[in-house]
Amino acid sequence: MSEPTAALLVRGASQVVTCVGRRPFDLGLIEGGAVLIRGGKVWWVGPDSELPTGLGDVPELDAGGGCVLPGFVDAHTHLAFAGDRAAEHEARLRGDRYETGGIMTTVASTRAATTEALVAETEARARSALASGTTTLEAKSGYGLDTETERRLLEVLATVAERTPLRIVPTFLGAHLLPEPGYLDLLIEEMLPVCAPLAEGCDAFCDIGALSVAESRQALEAGIAYGLVPRLHAEELAHTGGALLAAELSCASADHLVHATEDDARALAFAGVVAVLLPATSFCLRSAYAPARRLLDRGATIALATDCNPGTSYTTSMPFVIAVACSEMRLSAEEAVRAATAGGAAALRRPELGRLTPGSAGDLVVLAGETYADLAYHPGMDRVAAVVAGGEIVKGPGAAVPGTAS
Amino acid sequence: MSEPTAALLVRGASQVVTCVGRRPFDLGLIEGGAVLIRGGKVWWVGPDSELPTGLGDVPELDAGGGCVLPGFVDAHTHLAFAGDRAAEHEARLRGDRYETGGIMTTVASTRAATTEALVAETEARARSALASGTTTLEAKSGYGLDTETERRLLEVLATVAERTPLRIVPTFLGAHLLPEPGYLDLLIEEMLPVCAPLAEGCDAFCDIGALSVAESRQALEAGIAYGLVPRLHAEELAHTGGALLAAELSCASADHLVHATEDDARALAFAGVVAVLLPATSFCLRSAYAPARRLLDRGATIALATDCNPGTSYTTSMPFVIAVACSEMRLSAEEAVRAATAGGAAALRRPELGRLTPGSAGDLVVLAGETYADLAYHPGMDRVAAVVAGGEIVKGPGAAVPGTAS
Repeated sequence: MSEPTAALLVRGASQVVTCVGRRPFDLGLIEGGAVLIRGGKVWWVGPDSELPTGLGDVPELDAGGGCVLPGFVDAHTHLAFAGDRAAEHEARLRGDRYETGGIMTTVASTRAATTEALVAETEARARSALASGTTTLEAKSGYGLDTETERRLLEVLATVAERTPLRIVPTFLGAHLLPEPGYLDLLIEEMLPVCAPLAEGCDAFCDIGALSVAESRQALEAGIAYGLVPRLHAEELAHTGGALLAAELSCASADHLVHATEDDARALAFAGVVAVLLPATSFCLRSAYAPARRLLDRGATIALATDCNPGTSYTTSMPFVIAVACSEMRLSAEEAVRAATAGGAAALRRPELGRLTPGSAGDLVVLAGETYADLAYHPGMDRVAAVVAGGEIVKGPGAAVPGTAS
Repeated sequence: MSEPTAALLVRGASQVVTCVGRRPFDLGLIEGGAVLIRGGKVWWVGPDSELPTGLGDVPELDAGGGCVLPGFVDAHTHLAFAGDRAAEHEARLRGDRYETGGIMTTVASTRAATTEALVAETEARARSALASGTTTLEAKSGYGLDTETERRLLEVLATVAERTPLRIVPTFLGAHLLPEPGYLDLLIEEMLPVCAPLAEGCDAFCDIGALSVAESRQALEAGIAYGLVPRLHAEELAHTGGALLAAELSCASADHLVHATEDDARALAFAGVVAVLLPATSFCLRSAYAPARRLLDRGATIALATDCNPGTSYTTSMPFVIAVACSEMRLSAEEAVRAATAGGAAALRRPELGRLTPGSAGDLVVLAGETYADLAYHPGMDRVAAVVAGGEIVKGPGAAVPGTAS
């Protein structure tokens, strides 16, 4: 992320999605809007016809009649790892048995990779996320599971954040699995002191085959003691009680929630825990989708995220996630767009992101179509005509940094 | 489509998918393969190490370690129309009632559009299809529903085929609806004589709210008398008997088939009618998916296609269709890739397409990943690194024709 000094005037939009408003479907639309960015932040937003005069010499980006919306905030990824598991995915699609270590397979390739190789792989994924409109992305460690590699992964994320215009929010996920007896003590006594200064949040994978509720509580409470913002993988593979733990600990988010009940939904809403939903993971695993409508009905704030990881959701595309959420979770286009922007920002406790209002970050996307519905209307197509991060054009006419397709 | 005189040597592939083999999951893989195109056609394909010597000065395309597969054959689109129906889609996602004329809404905007505007819109969609790896595409008329506009739509398709490297197979779909009493007589007596010379196939929409089986039979038999290859929209919204009609008339394809029964599957397989499945339409409508596994189990040949149209599936992306078919129709990656290439070619009765074997068309795609599974493994991402049509590079390093993102 470069220093936020850039100024930019975005004009010629058919509509600007500001995400101002309290309800989960409020997009705060301004028809024929313009956005002025100064010092990397939104300085003014309103109808083009009311643009302030005397702005001086500000570079302009022509939205070409497209819809302008806040840059996507992808609130759940595992961006830093080495290697892929394409063969495992292929076997799953065939219905074949496939002997895999799952997460441990990626742990092995990640430990074996040089830091340089990890940076290169992670940077390619970061640029691909940027090209599809993501300007902020939460990224977890968790494929190290030893002090040295967990630290390296958090350093890799810092390096990639420096080298790209992507805003990266790092999370320590040493509690991705408990690979051996005594690991939780090691995590608390040795890993956290080293890793906490490099992270903003902490996370645990609370599920069958991973951590129990008691173990997750131990891991998160230790992280909280280091000032980390807690979040939790909850109720993905089975219902084990993670959602209520997340509510009890006032986590910033509870993520996955495929098996969340009415009680879970109520508890998350009451505690202000954002429900981060990951439809691409259900899509890849051919499993059930999280009960998005139940969560909304009970008053929970929802966010949509990619879960980008090599085992169960190897995509960086928020437009794809939005389309699947509309189709399979029965969100409206308004709800999905809001969950992918302001919802993600709420999950990251970054109110200055995911909206376009004076003082918020100068991060935005210009669509090829005239309305926010364009993303759901053209599934699988690249409808992101331009991307601006901190006032800098990173994709589209005038882009200084080339995007990559990989 | 330019004259097929081009020569090109594609090297550096991790694997070449030839689609040689009889079973629906046979991909005929050649590891470390190379493809030599001469006169626009595949001249040689085999392991790079066995490349013939003395080839002279042939331009090369480096596959960069990616997988090479035949260009996608999208066997069902409604590519030529004017206007969009984004607001209708948006209302459907919200669950709102929305007064729409459906197909007739697009008929009205299409009739009102100039031929120049129709060419521009259709060409943009054609280029977007090319950029995502489609090198052959079936395209139907059917948004004219009068002699003049149906003729114009088929001319538009011919113009776009001339102006782009996309191979377009035109189908007369005057029987998209029966807009007024006496229309079927008009279609047979006035429209067919004008339109048949401009088309290769004929089609009818056999369903509730559209044509009955008897009306569909009348429309197709008239088309067959003009030498057109028959195909049929069958069993999409309800089970009305279209699949058995398609079998009886030896149609090249029966399309949609959401409500196809065991008997339908058996009849299609026995008659050699290709089942063209359109998962993006089910995705957009949130409706059931066609029983792909049942069709395969009964021995039918399946094809995957986009159904690109402004009402129910506004996408040109075959990679998206492949990913949805793997997730929602439970196809393996092998079955989906074969259905999107050789399957589409079978539906179009063009055995020279959809394979990479000596004599077949020099149409291919280079993926960013090492195996054909890459498309299902990275849903929503642009994994098409290069596209070659008739031996000409149309996307990727050395491309003469720029792709468009819209």
